[in-house]
Amino acid sequence: MSRDAIGRSKYELDTPALVLDSPVLKKNVALMQAHAGSCGKALRPHAKTHKCSRIARVQIEAGAVGVCAAKVSEAAALVDGGIGAVLVTSPVVTPRKIGRLLDCLERAPELMTVLDDAANACALDAAARRRGLRLGVLVDLDPGLGRTGVSFDRVLALARAVHACDGLRLRGIQCYAGHLQHVPKFEERSQRSLACMQAAARCVAQLREAGLPCEIFSGAGTGTYDIDTRIPEVTELQVGSYALMDAEYVRIGSAAAADRFTAFQPALTLLTAVISANQATHVTVDAGLKALYHHGDTPFVVYPPELAGVTYDWFGDEHGKIVVGESAACPALGTVLELVVSHCDPTINLFEELFVVRDGTVVDVWPIDLRGRSQ
Amino acid sequence: MSRDAIGRSKYELDTPALVLDSPVLKKNVALMQAHAGSCGKALRPHAKTHKCSRIARVQIEAGAVGVCAAKVSEAAALVDGGIGAVLVTSPVVTPRKIGRLLDCLERAPELMTVLDDAANACALDAAARRRGLRLGVLVDLDPGLGRTGVSFDRVLALARAVHACDGLRLRGIQCYAGHLQHVPKFEERSQRSLACMQAAARCVAQLREAGLPCEIFSGAGTGTYDIDTRIPEVTELQVGSYALMDAEYVRIGSAAAADRFTAFQPALTLLTAVISANQATHVTVDAGLKALYHHGDTPFVVYPPELAGVTYDWFGDEHGKIVVGESAACPALGTVLELVVSHCDPTINLFEELFVVRDGTVVDVWPIDLRGRSQ
Repeated sequence: MSRDAIGRSKYELDTPALVLDSPVLKKNVALMQAHAGSCGKALRPHAKTHKCSRIARVQIEAGAVGVCAAKVSEAAALVDGGIGAVLVTSPVVTPRKIGRLLDCLERAPELMTVLDDAANACALDAAARRRGLRLGVLVDLDPGLGRTGVSFDRVLALARAVHACDGLRLRGIQCYAGHLQHVPKFEERSQRSLACMQAAARCVAQLREAGLPCEIFSGAGTGTYDIDTRIPEVTELQVGSYALMDAEYVRIGSAAAADRFTAFQPALTLLTAVISANQATHVTVDAGLKALYHHGDTPFVVYPPELAGVTYDWFGDEHGKIVVGESAACPALGTVLELVVSHCDPTINLFEELFVVRDGTVVDVWPIDLRGRSQ
Repeated sequence: MSRDAIGRSKYELDTPALVLDSPVLKKNVALMQAHAGSCGKALRPHAKTHKCSRIARVQIEAGAVGVCAAKVSEAAALVDGGIGAVLVTSPVVTPRKIGRLLDCLERAPELMTVLDDAANACALDAAARRRGLRLGVLVDLDPGLGRTGVSFDRVLALARAVHACDGLRLRGIQCYAGHLQHVPKFEERSQRSLACMQAAARCVAQLREAGLPCEIFSGAGTGTYDIDTRIPEVTELQVGSYALMDAEYVRIGSAAAADRFTAFQPALTLLTAVISANQATHVTVDAGLKALYHHGDTPFVVYPPELAGVTYDWFGDEHGKIVVGESAACPALGTVLELVVSHCDPTINLFEELFVVRDGTVVDVWPIDLRGRSQ
């Protein structure tokens, strides 16, 4: 398989397989870029979603200023893939990781990281100075989730500490409200996200009043991409899922008023085949929780047309269950089904390759080169 | 990293990392082998758990007759790794997969598969005959789960159909009650598994009375390893998790009376480091749901000793949460913690390598060569 799949119908691929619809990807990428541009914001899409430097390149070519990475090992793979303007969105703490980060910085001077601790700032500073480097830094703000970041009242002190370090270059702040992206109701999500981002915006003002540089305020996800843009201080969006979409964001989209999210269409699907058909109302397919991550909303069928909308359920590590019900006929043994996955990020992280298709035909195979890069 | 980690303390590894304690693995493997032997059963451990042909080799060297694979692509990796006696425990249906299976059979004549459908038997037979091969087959029985397998009343007819195929060699049956392995109470698990396996044993008798070969009855998992051995017709155990253990089986063990399971100790642990420590009662670590699969029982800390027993909770795709509580001190930024994982199978499938340790020192690095082999 792999490259000898090029030119074939996607339904001939060995299953399970992940399929990326190239025109849909490009449309999603262009739409978000146009949205950011129309709001006067930059776009720095999160590569943790797609784990693929080829997709990152599509985003950069469409106008993104760079990409985000969750981990240093992801950043290293992006730099290997020719993407230099990477923001690492989690603190980099252990000596080994700091070393790897600076290895990247040597090759990609635009690379930045976030931090949320003064001692960590000192460690990064010392390591950078030892190597004659200067590392761009955003102070990470805790949006109330308690995961990473400092509380709003401690931002100024930490920013001052960073600014005092010769090996660091204070670039601004990050505030990413991960816990608000999937709030189902648009109005509630909107109100909570605006409150959070406005508090962060006041920190931007504090920094500037104190004479500290704060050229970047990075934030927003696919759930708040057109909410957080209302905050003038926000300079860039670090949205991720919009490029590929998944069942989770499709549901949030349909729960919203107006046509929000309907703009973004699922570009990623999973192919799976029926391997057992001895039951009256369900069949067993060959994608289990090792091929379709058991997290987020229920996956659903988009092909074949007669099963469109039927839901998938996990059936152990290796298998899935497609319940057709009494009214319809079960698909025959060997039938290939196409699904929208539950939560795109961790499912992509299970595979080595994306089969890129146009009009149902495989046109390329892209390595998921950030896969497994959790370090 | 990787091989240059050899000789270092495991706590110096870049995190997250999966660690395999070699003496514990060998002890678990020896114990299960001794148990099977004392019951007069063969052992064919399931490689879907560890995804590692080096571990499969340890099991074979200890006396296993072969190993199981859930998928054809896993079988191919095992054959590449020098393990020939592989049983594929899920039906192999699509033409592409049948082709790959026969590629394996050419290199490993002992390879077998299961099937649960007469048309599938014909397809396998025709493909094998076209290539001048003969494929060993077990008829897969549905233990009442409805996932794969035929119902008990249809076993004889399907076995007859297989036996009539020149390209197939009927070897026996498989009955694996996946839904009973994690029933918490030993007595209930015991009673339900015995009922199921006794019904399967009656099928063995039927086949033999009909003059059909049935030399193999493969079944049992780590949850029923010392229950199903009470069935005389069972010839081999296809247990998997016992070799590495996880939080799920540790819990089942502690729920059981007597010393069941306490024999098997966790050989697999995950190392993760504290990357944010700005909260009073919890810290954030660098293993999220992409490094520690969100399935099964709660992971728990085994190192450092002062945090032993503290539980881990998922904190999104990239992070985990260690709640220490008000009474104890939170570990400092950069502290490395060691955890027993929730469900070993899918967590191993997230990594490329196992760091093999003895007395806390890395002695080898084994590739997880079946990783991502979901096809």
